[in-house]
Amino acid sequence: MELIVYLAGQIHDDWRKTLKDKASEKKLPITFVGPMENHDRSDNIGEEILGQQPNTILKDEAASKMNNLRTRVLMEKSDIVIALFGEKYKQWNSAADAASAVALNKPLILVRPAELHHPLKELSEKAQVTVETIDQALHTLAYIFDND
Amino acid sequence: MELIVYLAGQIHDDWRKTLKDKASEKKLPITFVGPMENHDRSDNIGEEILGQQPNTILKDEAASKMNNLRTRVLMEKSDIVIALFGEKYKQWNSAADAASAVALNKPLILVRPAELHHPLKELSEKAQVTVETIDQALHTLAYIFDND
Amino acid sequence: MELIVYLAGQIHDDWRKTLKDKASEKKLPITFVGPMENHDRSDNIGEEILGQQPNTILKDEAASKMNNLRTRVLMEKSDIVIALFGEKYKQWNSAADAASAVALNKPLILVRPAELHHPLKELSEKAQVTVETIDQALHTLAYIFDND
Amino acid sequence: MELIVYLAGQIHDDWRKTLKDKASEKKLPITFVGPMENHDRSDNIGEEILGQQPNTILKDEAASKMNNLRTRVLMEKSDIVIALFGEKYKQWNSAADAASAVALNKPLILVRPAELHHPLKELSEKAQVTVETIDQALHTLAYIFDND
Amino acid sequence: MELIVYLAGQIHDDWRKTLKDKASEKKLPITFVGPMENHDRSDNIGEEILGQQPNTILKDEAASKMNNLRTRVLMEKSDIVIALFGEKYKQWNSAADAASAVALNKPLILVRPAELHHPLKELSEKAQVTVETIDQALHTLAYIFDND
Amino acid sequence: MELIVYLAGQIHDDWRKTLKDKASEKKLPITFVGPMENHDRSDNIGEEILGQQPNTILKDEAASKMNNLRTRVLMEKSDIVIALFGEKYKQWNSAADAASAVALNKPLILVRPAELHHPLKELSEKAQVTVETIDQALHTLAYIFDND
Amino acid sequence: MELIVYLAGQIHDDWRKTLKDKASEKKLPITFVGPMENHDRSDNIGEEILGQQPNTILKDEAASKMNNLRTRVLMEKSDIVIALFGEKYKQWNSAADAASAVALNKPLILVRPAELHHPLKELSEKAQVTVETIDQALHTLAYIFDND
Amino acid sequence: MELIVYLAGQIHDDWRKTLKDKASEKKLPITFVGPMENHDRSDNIGEEILGQQPNTILKDEAASKMNNLRTRVLMEKSDIVIALFGEKYKQWNSAADAASAVALNKPLILVRPAELHHPLKELSEKAQVTVETIDQALHTLAYIFDND
Repeated sequence: MELIVYLAGQIHDDWRKTLKDKASEKKLPITFVGPMENHDRSDNIGEEILGQQPNTILKDEAASKMNNLRTRVLMEKSDIVIALFGEKYKQWNSAADAASAVALNKPLILVRPAELHHPLKELSEKAQVTVETIDQALHTLAYIFDND
Repeated sequence: MELIVYLAGQIHDDWRKTLKDKASEKKLPITFVGPMENHDRSDNIGEEILGQQPNTILKDEAASKMNNLRTRVLMEKSDIVIALFGEKYKQWNSAADAASAVALNKPLILVRPAELHHPLKELSEKAQVTVETIDQALHTLAYIFDND
Repeated sequence: MELIVYLAGQIHDDWRKTLKDKASEKKLPITFVGPMENHDRSDNIGEEILGQQPNTILKDEAASKMNNLRTRVLMEKSDIVIALFGEKYKQWNSAADAASAVALNKPLILVRPAELHHPLKELSEKAQVTVETIDQALHTLAYIFDND
Repeated sequence: MELIVYLAGQIHDDWRKTLKDKASEKKLPITFVGPMENHDRSDNIGEEILGQQPNTILKDEAASKMNNLRTRVLMEKSDIVIALFGEKYKQWNSAADAASAVALNKPLILVRPAELHHPLKELSEKAQVTVETIDQALHTLAYIFDND
Repeated sequence: MELIVYLAGQIHDDWRKTLKDKASEKKLPITFVGPMENHDRSDNIGEEILGQQPNTILKDEAASKMNNLRTRVLMEKSDIVIALFGEKYKQWNSAADAASAVALNKPLILVRPAELHHPLKELSEKAQVTVETIDQALHTLAYIFDND
Repeated sequence: MELIVYLAGQIHDDWRKTLKDKASEKKLPITFVGPMENHDRSDNIGEEILGQQPNTILKDEAASKMNNLRTRVLMEKSDIVIALFGEKYKQWNSAADAASAVALNKPLILVRPAELHHPLKELSEKAQVTVETIDQALHTLAYIFDND
Repeated sequence: MELIVYLAGQIHDDWRKTLKDKASEKKLPITFVGPMENHDRSDNIGEEILGQQPNTILKDEAASKMNNLRTRVLMEKSDIVIALFGEKYKQWNSAADAASAVALNKPLILVRPAELHHPLKELSEKAQVTVETIDQALHTLAYIFDND
Repeated sequence: MELIVYLAGQIHDDWRKTLKDKASEKKLPITFVGPMENHDRSDNIGEEILGQQPNTILKDEAASKMNNLRTRVLMEKSDIVIALFGEKYKQWNSAADAASAVALNKPLILVRPAELHHPLKELSEKAQVTVETIDQALHTLAYIFDND
């Protein structure tokens, strides 16, 4: 049995690569999917496909449509969603993706530093599991497959 | 035909009262519901019901459970969700409620100042309608009932 | 028991009024809902609410959002959808509303002149009932309530 | 991860072949499905299977049943639906298939020339992405799989 | 709290009236709905609405569409479905309505004489409750409202 | 806005009456529903309706069908489920009803003494809110309606 | 792309083998599933697994449970359901399986001789396609895969 | 065709291994999944992943979250759920898992000794099949695949 795990959250460092490498070492039968991690491309994808837009608002709107398509398709395929929150990137978008997962009945693993407890308390309460580190998230995934 | 509209978003000023009063003047057949607007009570409701908790984290967790119960029950009853975002209160929780509405197939009316376009672009793209003022949101609701 | 019936299709003549008046004469316990029938207002509603838009494409987009909100909310409330097609107004939008009804598991009553059989054959096959006149559609609705 | 994409819209030229060939060149892990593209066979399939029908209306009805079976089965299997609209073939059926996709919660990519903006404005608003060319649609699909 | 109960099964005697009268005596807060009980009208409703059809097969098809519309709308509204089977009228249609109810997650009360146990064994196993008389069915309904 | 609350759990004392009386004093707009509270009648309802059964296993089976019908119908109507667990009555049936509520996406309020924490830990984790007393459960319900 | 097709209906002759052999010759990528075709085993499976039952009614009930388990699991996996009706075996069970398929939103292909038109008219109207022979049903399946 | 079967119930002896070995001998195409069977690890998994918790209640809560994640993910993947109840381990949790399966529309095979009939009567009535031994459960699974 294989699982698909969507990795929501900030795209400003390579936490997804770290997680994938460690999962790979443990030989977990998991396919990880997620948003475009090249931040510039993610912002420009609307114009990349449709050509230059009249203003930045329409540029953003075009990009959002492409990014939301990707998220919808890949999250729909997923068995579990992991959402990472950090001090630095307080994006509404990450909270939206995490809440979508819950409403779509996908179990959510929330990763956040302890200090962010208060602003994330409602989302944490909706999550199936809340942990503080990527290693803990991976450990949680691994537990699903352990027999002993 | 009556509609139920859930009012998500910040609870730091009385925008809900403004909206309700204007809807009342227009005699729109709408029942408005939403979160507890007394901010202190919302933060303390866990301890109010369960008694003092060992620490602030558990106090927050207890409050979140009560508040999330309220949101689940009332949003489930709703036909439309309005979510207000402002410069001052950049809560993940509002984004989570707005995204839950979309995932639950409730049409979302997003209210936000134009300056917040960029950080809310994905959520705006998921909304059925995005407007900038409460009056515009009300106008949008009224249009559903107009015959001419 | 009351039923709610959504009246999809062209808004260029007063077929909805005819249907409602006849249903009223027969005292059928039905509430009829539908799109804005004032065609100009329907086209301008985006600018009416949001103010002037940069160009006609964005004007149309804004209006579509408001009109689609109305359709989503009212069709969701409905028990049955009637869609009228005529020689004169061959709108893709009417076909889209009719197909949405079917996909949402709302029984569809299709009204179209016999001559339009060929272009509407797939939609007719998806409909629960296809008739040729408004009187026949009304007769079909009345039959649901008849005891003898 | 493989995706299945349903190609709705006119069957009068070989746009599907163009799209498939280009996807194949890019080695996208996509299976494309869609309606019978042999137009005559599509029109005659009812009689091909059931034998001659009493009149053209019943011939059409029989064919519609077979074609709708195919569409239901294949669209249900799909992750994304692409619908192409052009100046020449203004079929209600294409609009119906596109709207079915939206109502079934399949992300819709609408392809249409800019000039068709107005008559397709509601459908475009329901689509996840609207583009003007087949190349742009393919680019949009490819973006879902890109990592950088 | 009111319940709606759909009465499926043969329309050749007045068992529905018997059941309704007894429920009325007991003042149960139940609205009963069901198919057209005038057998001739049920068979002719297609031609009554659409005019004479070319042959009896098309007459039957037209009538089935009208009758199935009625069943779909009313069964969808129901909280419980009662299906009566008797020695005399072994209709596939009654079995189909009973099975539809189960698949739509409506609790089914099956009423059949003991002798029909064998041919109805699978349907009985799918039913929530199987009884032998109309009085027992009514007693079962009444139990839902009893407090002591 | 009215809510319907299903009261699951043991039927050996009158905790439901206590809760209803207090809700009535507070004038909460809630309709409470639940299982037959007359324990003997609940055990005998199968034979009461169907007549004497061949043995106690079949007597139990018949009663279970009637009781499960009642639970299905009333829980389906409910907005919230409260399940009470006590030291004395460790029924699998109460756990089953509580878990059904969760799986049906009904928010669950679990009421149990602190000492029962360990055996109920998984169910408590699935509940939206866990409290220790009936008064706390009522307080939680009341909070949904409070405006200040 | 592979499809799974459930073959409902009588188990008194080897129509399923005929269909499977022909599909195999045509190399259609279809897996066929269906009920136990050994009629005696189907009737005795309850006692085969659970041991002798007190009477024939309980023997039947036990068998129905096992057979209904099989049908539920396999029909749930299916993309299409074919139901065969013939003059000889007028089983309520076949009608129930066919109607379940429709209610579960599985496209139904009904196979019946023309003479059975009248008693099957409602079921035929619910089916996606009605044909008269097994060859026609196979032809219909094959059409889903044809490209020209 | 492969099936996935979730094995719910007590984790105090190796009944799952027995079942798996026998299924393996019969070469049934079934993948079995289930909870962590190492009881100590199951109780300690919260602290294993998150580190020491302030008290045993929070230790239990943390463990429940991890175990419930595993159950949600694996049960969602399953086609059938088997739940074993025995004299020794009367866990509410097993009843909760069994009832979740039913509410999620997964066919439930209940395994329990005859003596436990009374306390499990409601759950047994909800199950698709109730048997007394693991061999009978396996026999029931095998029957789904038998052709003769």
